Amino acid sequence: MEYPNSFEELVECFKMLPGIGTKGAERMVYHILAMDDDQIQRFSQALIDFKSNIQYCQRCGHICEGELCEICLDQQRDQTTICVVESPKDVFAMEKLKEYRGLYHVLHGTMSIMDGKTIDDLNIQTLFDRLDENIKEVIIATNPTREGETTALFLAKLLAKQNIPASRIANGLPIGGNLDYADELTLLKSLEGRKKL
Amino acid sequence: MEYPNSFEELVECFKMLPGIGTKGAERMVYHILAMDDDQIQRFSQALIDFKSNIQYCQRCGHICEGELCEICLDQQRDQTTICVVESPKDVFAMEKLKEYRGLYHVLHGTMSIMDGKTIDDLNIQTLFDRLDENIKEVIIATNPTREGETTALFLAKLLAKQNIPASRIANGLPIGGNLDYADELTLLKSLEGRKKL
Repeated sequence: MEYPNSFEELVECFKMLPGIGTKGAERMVYHILAMDDDQIQRFSQALIDFKSNIQYCQRCGHICEGELCEICLDQQRDQTTICVVESPKDVFAMEKLKEYRGLYHVLHGTMSIMDGKTIDDLNIQTLFDRLDENIKEVIIATNPTREGETTALFLAKLLAKQNIPASRIANGLPIGGNLDYADELTLLKSLEGRKKL
Repeated sequence: MEYPNSFEELVECFKMLPGIGTKGAERMVYHILAMDDDQIQRFSQALIDFKSNIQYCQRCGHICEGELCEICLDQQRDQTTICVVESPKDVFAMEKLKEYRGLYHVLHGTMSIMDGKTIDDLNIQTLFDRLDENIKEVIIATNPTREGETTALFLAKLLAKQNIPASRIANGLPIGGNLDYADELTLLKSLEGRKKL
């Protein structure tokens, strides 16, 4: 026996989400079956509102609900430093620190030979449009993966051409980590990046 | 830094779903951020359609898109047997067997002292409306939990009063199970329900 069409369609929609298979999607749809009409309406509206309200900041590429994100609008922040990250979630991760007070720039991806993405596919032109003599430092905070490192190196070269001081976030053992369990590359980076005490 | 309102609202909506916490909901919303507008529109529409199209069969309480479900409409099925289950997903589970050819009745829950649910809170009046001299057997297939067993016993008494033959699905060791790992109650039921070879 097959599910009714509307049921099956909703299962298919949930299966588009990460980590949700058929069983999980069915479980969610059964749960929604027991939900109030108001709640289902709210969920549906939230998707529509999300789609229409969430935009990318025209300056840095972070998500926001207007033309510019709240970080770009905040004049209290250090306007001389830009931290370049891969995605909006990296901005939220950095902001949780409450340590960094500069600006951001979101690339929306990395260069990737596998996916055929070059530097031109990234949100990079707007970055160079922002760079002037006021910018004292660009911190490249792409992920320490193959793609992230490639992008970081490439970006560093482009910045060097324009005489913009660039830096890269440190690699090494995570706090609470264990030498014994660390992979060789992490340990090597940790050794290379050692600091004088 | 907080998420934009529309982002936060969608996270809250995903958190209503079973097994989804804040981290999981955020992961889904980030995924939706990268989805096409069409796909988000489809998802939102699927929720609305689900809400407006899925109804409960007026006869048996199973989910359907019309007044009556396809099982009730199927005249080829054995009209003399009714299998009573707790929820629509139990109907789908039974139907997967392709063994049972009778009708169903969905109670939409069980009696539960904890939740203050009595027999009157269940979809039971429509069951008794269906019972006439044509019904040869009512198979009570509520779950073998405390609430399911209570409901089954209560239902059996009501059926006995009307001289309707009732039966209960068997308890015992699941196929592929292990005596060593079985709980005592299951093993006891398995022994009690032994069959002559």
